[in-house]
Amino acid sequence: MVSEFDIIRRHFLAATPAREDVLLGVGDDCALLQVPADRLLAVSSDTLVAGRHFDPGVAPDALGHKALAVNLSDLAAMGAEPVWASLCLTLPEADEAWIAGFAQGFATLAHRHGVQLVGGDTTRGPLSISVTVHGLLEPGRVLRRDAARPGDLLYVTGHLGDAGLALLARQGLYVRDGSMAELQQRLDRPEPRVDEGRAAAGLAHAAIDLSDGLGSDLRHLCEASGVGALLYLESLPLSNAVRDYVEETGDWSVPLSSGDDYELLLSVPADRQSVFERAARDWLVPATWVGMVDHGRTVRAMYPDGRLEHEITGGYDHFRE
Amino acid sequence: MVSEFDIIRRHFLAATPAREDVLLGVGDDCALLQVPADRLLAVSSDTLVAGRHFDPGVAPDALGHKALAVNLSDLAAMGAEPVWASLCLTLPEADEAWIAGFAQGFATLAHRHGVQLVGGDTTRGPLSISVTVHGLLEPGRVLRRDAARPGDLLYVTGHLGDAGLALLARQGLYVRDGSMAELQQRLDRPEPRVDEGRAAAGLAHAAIDLSDGLGSDLRHLCEASGVGALLYLESLPLSNAVRDYVEETGDWSVPLSSGDDYELLLSVPADRQSVFERAARDWLVPATWVGMVDHGRTVRAMYPDGRLEHEITGGYDHFRE
Repeated sequence: MVSEFDIIRRHFLAATPAREDVLLGVGDDCALLQVPADRLLAVSSDTLVAGRHFDPGVAPDALGHKALAVNLSDLAAMGAEPVWASLCLTLPEADEAWIAGFAQGFATLAHRHGVQLVGGDTTRGPLSISVTVHGLLEPGRVLRRDAARPGDLLYVTGHLGDAGLALLARQGLYVRDGSMAELQQRLDRPEPRVDEGRAAAGLAHAAIDLSDGLGSDLRHLCEASGVGALLYLESLPLSNAVRDYVEETGDWSVPLSSGDDYELLLSVPADRQSVFERAARDWLVPATWVGMVDHGRTVRAMYPDGRLEHEITGGYDHFRE
Repeated sequence: MVSEFDIIRRHFLAATPAREDVLLGVGDDCALLQVPADRLLAVSSDTLVAGRHFDPGVAPDALGHKALAVNLSDLAAMGAEPVWASLCLTLPEADEAWIAGFAQGFATLAHRHGVQLVGGDTTRGPLSISVTVHGLLEPGRVLRRDAARPGDLLYVTGHLGDAGLALLARQGLYVRDGSMAELQQRLDRPEPRVDEGRAAAGLAHAAIDLSDGLGSDLRHLCEASGVGALLYLESLPLSNAVRDYVEETGDWSVPLSSGDDYELLLSVPADRQSVFERAARDWLVPATWVGMVDHGRTVRAMYPDGRLEHEITGGYDHFRE
């Protein structure tokens, strides 16, 4: 039987970049870290539970990727530069091949964003993963959730609903001609919009990452900011697959209420529209205008035919079925 | 059915102290925190899994206490001042009474140490708790695990083996005349030695907290420092209950190899003995000399009868049965 210390040492210790601001990494009671005097610290934690957030049969490297990605997405939504991560990994058994795969997925993404694994815990139990990430921010360049203002333009990065449609397909609830590989990739290996968030900080007023679905997350942003919003569904950025699905079924819930997009929703002051759009031209994924912030108290949506939905509800809540 | 957002809001948001260095707490994508320019950041994460680290039937307030306590103990072992915590709570159901009890145990301890809950995640699944704590340190006053030097004196805080004996009793493997309430308390509600750790920083060379058992944790400290050690079992600080048990059974594994003590093991340079012992007189629990650091490569133990154990092994490892 493999020791937990051995597991950590063998697969994780040298797997992520070594940063100069890490005075002590994995191996002591605590990690010891240096925050520059002119930076704020951003911290976020997320848990993925087998059978709830992922299929226990999912490829371990995809899971390692996703466990870090959903956390980096929270840093992205703040406009923060990712720096350190801790990993609490609970495993039913010490399956070395699985752990090696998980570590590889985790480490590959960590390298891409310069994140060092600095600590955590390995325990035995039902498969579940809690990651805590740390990021750094300039005090004047923070994307808060509560800072959207009436008149702001709403933008989203990338495309919406791909992960949701992939999940429907995986559950056998949707069959499509042609390959689903790209959609599955979007579900299993979401790309946190870290560079986009950092670039938007200082331009956008507010941001949130889309983990629960656009409708639900926009509602969170509006509630925190004390504003309302109107979404133009016609303007939502959709992949061909999701556009086909919506046209076939008339069901907007996939781009609007399915989770796991991990795109950013940005609330941009109107007088910065052109500078924001210019900046966004350099991004890997497009930023698309999807609606307006207003003085209301609800999130409304206008369908392509002009019909108005007066209050979007729904979205994912773990304790409401 | 209760919403996870409601659960967090109702029971945790106002439950812990509000610190001035928290610019944004629970509710945004990240917490936003201010680290003073002259401080290092210490971070540690620990997971407790039902059935592995605790009995699922344990009182929820004891569990809330313990989940934070075992993490604060890691900060104590570093000599850090606790400041912030994140809580990832995975629950099989949204049982409000249970959550209220858990939050109360967590918050009471958090208040005592000035720790603000700044974030986390609530998900549904098999009961498990991951906590990440943050502490602050002066650069010159750090208790590392790898800084013990031959000739150092080894001290432990409090008493050893109480939690281990309580566990034996709870499992029906040990019966004792008289009350076990105090021992059970030591198992269910360990007190992290935060003040003791902070006072020892700048005096001791090195420290580790005793989560796996003295033998095992001393071995970790020795391995990290490249040294050996000799323990004088006669000198171990034992409660009457544990002393009785050892005398009855001749079994030293309870004070030596059972986990969950959450006392500190400190490696103190000999020339600071008197100043260290003077400082320790003010502590809530005694600091007791138990052995020496030497040039060896193993941890040896001398029994009260003079017999020498040449290599202590054992201790708790989740993936070795």
